[in-house]
Amino acid sequence: MGDDVGFFEGVEKLMEIWFQEKSDQDDRGDAREITRQQWETILKSVNCEIIDEIKHDGHTAYLLSESSLFVSKNRIILKTCGTTLCLQALPHILKLSKTVCGFDGISDFFYSRKNFMKPDKQPHMHKSFQAEVEYLDKIIGGTSAAYCLGRLNGDCWFLYTLNDLPSQKNFGVKVPDQTLELLMVDLDREAMSQFCKLDKNGDPKSPAVFTENTGLADVFKGSKISAEFFDPCGFSLNGLIEKDFYWTIHVTPEPEFSYVSFETNAPRKNYSEVLDKIIKIFKPGRFAMTLFVNYLSTVDCSVWEERNGPHIAGYDCQDKQVARLQDYSLFYTNYKAGCS
Amino acid sequence: MGDDVGFFEGVEKLMEIWFQEKSDQDDRGDAREITRQQWETILKSVNCEIIDEIKHDGHTAYLLSESSLFVSKNRIILKTCGTTLCLQALPHILKLSKTVCGFDGISDFFYSRKNFMKPDKQPHMHKSFQAEVEYLDKIIGGTSAAYCLGRLNGDCWFLYTLNDLPSQKNFGVKVPDQTLELLMVDLDREAMSQFCKLDKNGDPKSPAVFTENTGLADVFKGSKISAEFFDPCGFSLNGLIEKDFYWTIHVTPEPEFSYVSFETNAPRKNYSEVLDKIIKIFKPGRFAMTLFVNYLSTVDCSVWEERNGPHIAGYDCQDKQVARLQDYSLFYTNYKAGCS
Repeated sequence: MGDDVGFFEGVEKLMEIWFQEKSDQDDRGDAREITRQQWETILKSVNCEIIDEIKHDGHTAYLLSESSLFVSKNRIILKTCGTTLCLQALPHILKLSKTVCGFDGISDFFYSRKNFMKPDKQPHMHKSFQAEVEYLDKIIGGTSAAYCLGRLNGDCWFLYTLNDLPSQKNFGVKVPDQTLELLMVDLDREAMSQFCKLDKNGDPKSPAVFTENTGLADVFKGSKISAEFFDPCGFSLNGLIEKDFYWTIHVTPEPEFSYVSFETNAPRKNYSEVLDKIIKIFKPGRFAMTLFVNYLSTVDCSVWEERNGPHIAGYDCQDKQVARLQDYSLFYTNYKAGCS
Repeated sequence: MGDDVGFFEGVEKLMEIWFQEKSDQDDRGDAREITRQQWETILKSVNCEIIDEIKHDGHTAYLLSESSLFVSKNRIILKTCGTTLCLQALPHILKLSKTVCGFDGISDFFYSRKNFMKPDKQPHMHKSFQAEVEYLDKIIGGTSAAYCLGRLNGDCWFLYTLNDLPSQKNFGVKVPDQTLELLMVDLDREAMSQFCKLDKNGDPKSPAVFTENTGLADVFKGSKISAEFFDPCGFSLNGLIEKDFYWTIHVTPEPEFSYVSFETNAPRKNYSEVLDKIIKIFKPGRFAMTLFVNYLSTVDCSVWEERNGPHIAGYDCQDKQVARLQDYSLFYTNYKAGCS
């Protein structure tokens, strides 16, 4: 993604903030009151910028120079890759949530990421998960819970969330919610070679046409899509579906550090069709998959409860863990291309 | 446990080694060939010593100055607390397993512990889980998997095990196996005050009589028991049941750093009765509970699969995680005394 000289860390820092929904009679508070200019100021401190913007059903998806930003009424999702300072946005967002949006406080919070390929290249606050936890604890206070799913000495995934805030009456997400994420590494070279800005003739490709041709547009048909290539390679896509459902894909195609992430909050009783499409397009050598499902969600978790998690043709489950969070169940799985 | 001056780390390092069972026709290999004298030499390098020994059904339980050692035909369990160098025993054991016992290699391996209260007081190799993983990787080789269950910023529990050894045909434990462990902290002061060497008159208590009176002997009735008090307080118990089933309890009663561990491999369809007895005797403020169950075990895991794990009267589940290991399912739960 824009770095043809050396290494680029595709692995994103992902922050999801939910704001307190007041009672039905009093639904003040709207994160969409934050203007694009205010976001641009915040993102400057993160070291990235807005390159595209789409709106759908009153929700906004910003495509960033390093990943994505989604803004709904009660929820902000900021996902940034490279050596960005994702968490640096938090104090600014919390301040604006009160002064501009009219919220009293946050109702839930999630910060997660896969283990970095090169943690030493990260800025100080992101060099280790411990450093991130210390930073977050200072800003958020309350009772936090920090987890590492997967292997400390292999592929793993870190999560910081809140827990037990009895003092805050409105704690917790009061709507059905689910998030599926695939964090893919060691991807097929041929599949990755498509994600270059120029075609064989040296002409710039149309992201819209490319999205149709690769089958990406079919992952969630009928989405409003914002997509861009990076120079000389790399690709990002934001999709907005009905309501506040989104999906997003970020591709770092260089074979030495190939990485692709896919994320959506669109509910599906069974994600097998979505997973099939994603896996077929990107052909990862290994991938971590996480699913958050809250107690109001309609997602059927039965295959995720099974010992080996959802069956993915051509892949073997290396690790599977299930964790109970405050209002969510969390499934973590790690797959490796195999002979099954 | 023998340290009345300052802090004592009750939290144990627990190492369980399974040796390759050959085919039925060829069941050479016996860990019980290691003599007491050889164990004494090994334990010297760990910084602890044998204080008692019992045998039952051909299996041996050694009570140590710092916890316990269990030796069965194909399995060695070494659990040591304080600032002992538990892992230092490993190269010695591996050497004797070939020269004395006649084994070709190990078939499975587990090293686990709760987070230490004071990691800085530990010797270098045990100062961090990362240091332990590095040490183990050097000695064991193969593909290891290192996990942290629970909260990185709170109560957590580390596990190092083996994974994917396709080159070793005899990898894996071929008999039904299960291990239940309770790691209790912040225990009731009155309950803890019993675990002193001297009675109210200043006379030494009989461990055997004490074991009966406290109800400890009832946890697994009919066990062969070896128990000792420490000076001025602290208590350890090894119990042997039929076959190679054992249970063990270690008590660090000092209120500033109270800690009690309970562990057994005895199969129970439902552990509720055992748990009730243990909780009633020790009254912990918080405890982590782990259950390993392999694919041959008859333990009914359905209550462990539930969102909040087994119901324990008077306690709230704070964390629950389920992890899939090579041949085992692993359940981790953390409970806090509450109002439920």
